[in-house]
Amino acid sequence: MSKSELPALEVIGQDADVCCSPMVREPLDEAAAVDLARMFKALSDPIRLRLLSLIASFEGGEACVCDLTGPFDVSQPTISHHLKVLREAGLVDSERRGTWVYYWVLPPALARLSSLLQAPAEAPTAAAGGAR
Amino acid sequence: MSKSELPALEVIGQDADVCCSPMVREPLDEAAAVDLARMFKALSDPIRLRLLSLIASFEGGEACVCDLTGPFDVSQPTISHHLKVLREAGLVDSERRGTWVYYWVLPPALARLSSLLQAPAEAPTAAAGGAR
Repeated sequence: MSKSELPALEVIGQDADVCCSPMVREPLDEAAAVDLARMFKALSDPIRLRLLSLIASFEGGEACVCDLTGPFDVSQPTISHHLKVLREAGLVDSERRGTWVYYWVLPPALARLSSLLQAPAEAPTAAAGGAR
Repeated sequence: MSKSELPALEVIGQDADVCCSPMVREPLDEAAAVDLARMFKALSDPIRLRLLSLIASFEGGEACVCDLTGPFDVSQPTISHHLKVLREAGLVDSERRGTWVYYWVLPPALARLSSLLQAPAEAPTAAAGGAR
């Protein structure tokens, strides 16, 4: 598969240089923390987490909004609100095609958060001491 | 290094079997989403993100609370509140030693979230189509 077919993965590579250092390696600066907190806030709701997971695990990596209400005990407007929060946080994107809007996750955004949260390679000295 | 020296990393291994499948692989169930949303909520505040990063990047992997107020323009009680939220979410643990309380991050919790957010290996078919 040629690089030109994978624009989203090229972006991951770019982000890795500038944004994806694990937070355990050096303290986050204030601007990065504000930006990242906004993304984590979008993930801080169980329905939004399940929506994101549902979209991402759909065959082909995208889902029609018509497929996203069935699994939830909430109204269509509530689902639409949650999808808007995910989109505004840069975690998903969407496009209208005819009657329906289709959603897909943005892999670079997930990769950024995943890299940020990478655990330390070794347990902290104190915690590994076994005294607790 | 023997396994017995790395209790925290052994827990990561256990978690990986039951909790750490990327959310893009299969839809999250409701109970897992509630649990994970609580952890992401703890990360949804810039000060808490910076505190977590500051603790994790301290030499030895732990920090005295006395080292955690200087970098912030908020009061000691506010810092203590944020540390309590991080602890209740299972992201850090703490111990009083003499005058001060010491904090360290819990690597299995970070590893769980990091694995959960692993991006798809390939861009979604539709997003890679180049039409957008």
